[in-house]
Amino acid sequence: MAESIKDRVAIIGMGSTKFGENFEMSFLDMAVEAAYEAYQDAGIDPKEVQAGWLGTFAPDQAGGFMGQAGSFLATAISLKDRPVTRVTNYCATGMEAIRNAAFAVAAGVFDIVIAVGCEKMRDVGPRESLIKQIITHGHPIIGKGQTAPGMFAMMATVHFKRFGTTKEDLAKVAVKNHYNGVRNPKAHFRKEIKLEQALKAPLISDPLGLFDCCPTTDGAAAAILTTPALAKQIKKNGEYILVKGMGLSVVTDTRYFEPGNEYTGFHATQNAAKLAYKDAGIKDPVKELDCAEVHDCFTITEILNYEDLGLCKKGEGGAFIREGRSALSGDMPVNTSGGLKSCGHPIGASGVRMTYEIYQQLLGRAGDRQIKDAELGLIHNLGGPGSVACVAIYGR
Amino acid sequence: MAESIKDRVAIIGMGSTKFGENFEMSFLDMAVEAAYEAYQDAGIDPKEVQAGWLGTFAPDQAGGFMGQAGSFLATAISLKDRPVTRVTNYCATGMEAIRNAAFAVAAGVFDIVIAVGCEKMRDVGPRESLIKQIITHGHPIIGKGQTAPGMFAMMATVHFKRFGTTKEDLAKVAVKNHYNGVRNPKAHFRKEIKLEQALKAPLISDPLGLFDCCPTTDGAAAAILTTPALAKQIKKNGEYILVKGMGLSVVTDTRYFEPGNEYTGFHATQNAAKLAYKDAGIKDPVKELDCAEVHDCFTITEILNYEDLGLCKKGEGGAFIREGRSALSGDMPVNTSGGLKSCGHPIGASGVRMTYEIYQQLLGRAGDRQIKDAELGLIHNLGGPGSVACVAIYGR
Repeated sequence: MAESIKDRVAIIGMGSTKFGENFEMSFLDMAVEAAYEAYQDAGIDPKEVQAGWLGTFAPDQAGGFMGQAGSFLATAISLKDRPVTRVTNYCATGMEAIRNAAFAVAAGVFDIVIAVGCEKMRDVGPRESLIKQIITHGHPIIGKGQTAPGMFAMMATVHFKRFGTTKEDLAKVAVKNHYNGVRNPKAHFRKEIKLEQALKAPLISDPLGLFDCCPTTDGAAAAILTTPALAKQIKKNGEYILVKGMGLSVVTDTRYFEPGNEYTGFHATQNAAKLAYKDAGIKDPVKELDCAEVHDCFTITEILNYEDLGLCKKGEGGAFIREGRSALSGDMPVNTSGGLKSCGHPIGASGVRMTYEIYQQLLGRAGDRQIKDAELGLIHNLGGPGSVACVAIYGR
Repeated sequence: MAESIKDRVAIIGMGSTKFGENFEMSFLDMAVEAAYEAYQDAGIDPKEVQAGWLGTFAPDQAGGFMGQAGSFLATAISLKDRPVTRVTNYCATGMEAIRNAAFAVAAGVFDIVIAVGCEKMRDVGPRESLIKQIITHGHPIIGKGQTAPGMFAMMATVHFKRFGTTKEDLAKVAVKNHYNGVRNPKAHFRKEIKLEQALKAPLISDPLGLFDCCPTTDGAAAAILTTPALAKQIKKNGEYILVKGMGLSVVTDTRYFEPGNEYTGFHATQNAAKLAYKDAGIKDPVKELDCAEVHDCFTITEILNYEDLGLCKKGEGGAFIREGRSALSGDMPVNTSGGLKSCGHPIGASGVRMTYEIYQQLLGRAGDRQIKDAELGLIHNLGGPGSVACVAIYGR
């Protein structure tokens, strides 16, 4: 019978580019920077790495025939003669790279592997942009003009009406995440904003304004995975973290566009969290978790995530931000990195970048945004038309 | 230290569409047909499947925004609430689906999983064909008009000059694989050809003629993987096979276009075979293997594979086909299914379809093309500009 992945895989090194408008760097430039920071952090030579996984969502947009970018990555990050596999799964793509790498380590078939997440979204290819491709090739509803802000605006409207959440609650998420982003040297946006500013910002899709939406960003991040036994040997200073749980859920009958969706939350997130909590043996997430990086593509999404991840009850997400519980100083700090709001969301990179934040927190390296005594952290991505979610939990 | 995957994963059910011009079936129609044949063959309900992997190379070509097709697949093959991950790695894409699924089973995190390979290549999307995309977005040399037949033609020319291989040797590969294809109800082409016919066929890229090239084809195939213990329980009749070895190699410095390539073979294949033979404990492949499905995108490729897989020495591939050693009646039957030559090469599907052939052979279900007492079989794919190869070995 299936076993938990708890305490069977360790992360011994991580790296991340600065997230932002990285026009001066190619897709592979970014991957190399992240991978080499991770090699150095782990204190290993690329020669010791036996296999790799690359998470990237739509690399062709970077202008080449890059769908099979795993092969190019092998060259770039010095993995000659070793396998590098590209994985992709909507916005959970980065987490998938780590997840599949973790399975191979847990299987014992490799000792040391690398997972890289990379995405170039500010540059677009010579033929068409990602947005244009989604619109022309995508789901019929998107094809008719529906966009991501439009979809999540509907969730916000329902939350306002059903649970009394307000535009000010949304703005508070943005203010918090911008506050944290200032304290994160790798963030795309590093400036505080005021509540007034968020409330008066131009509307993107009512009720979501400019500061309710995460930016379009380039970035890459990387993780070196190994067994706990080897981690202890390689990192004599104890600076590594352990996988405690992993849940990935692809939901079908409550996809965004399908009948039966009440627009009050995401079943994919609820189910992925259930699986990860079961692995990790977590009963009371708020009490047990010290920090969480969650998918705040829009401010309303972070509020829905509080509820879907069981940090509060359904409908209480507005109060959760209002009461400052998810602030750096709160009892359940969320998006200490600044979240997608400050770091942007280069799709394949995000899950790995969020893992990088939890890694820094658990190792006490998070500087001005450090959570005291952080021992257990969560990472969450939500993707596609609400159809995919991944939750991972890491501890010391 | 890393352990072999030998005897830690079993395949208990497989399915495959008819390969060919499947204009009447969508991408997902094909995946469903293959998956449901596999469920039925395994004697399990989709409810019992805990996770899935989808191998597909360029699904956007089928006309939709299908890059994240794992999510669509979950719906289609009844895997609500379970993870489905898309993997891709040039022509080894299908084998990657099985490989990553096998790691998750070997890790013990799932008991029963599915791997699906699927590709639609006869239909092209509304915007551009796969070939056109490769030419406009691809490697500069391809962009300047070089194509797959052109690349492999150069390999043939070198083999002719250096080792005395002839156009007739190439034709014999085509004749053999067409002969086998007639005996395979799932093959795209099911007609014998004569040596004369192959020799007189229109040239595609000198010295390769029409019958030296595999066709463009649609298809899907699927495999159900589990632990050996569960396999024994579920398949009381003993009708399952075991993974004996797996090697995947991404080569960098001997890529097709790079300096130092002697055009006499593929280091990626040699290295992948070495890894898989090590896992399986194979010392003398010809003596120990009973059958092999190898990547015959062109007839010259099959001859190079004989050498690179160690079935004969470098330069002796021409003699290997000439002496009938790889024929159904030979001492080392190769491509009993008819190979890519008769089955076509829907990229993401091929590796799984080839596994399906070895599965049928090892279970004694291969009808008119059955190898006597087949106990150990090999599957091989070669992809990209000679940069990726995967070898897997299965036994009873």
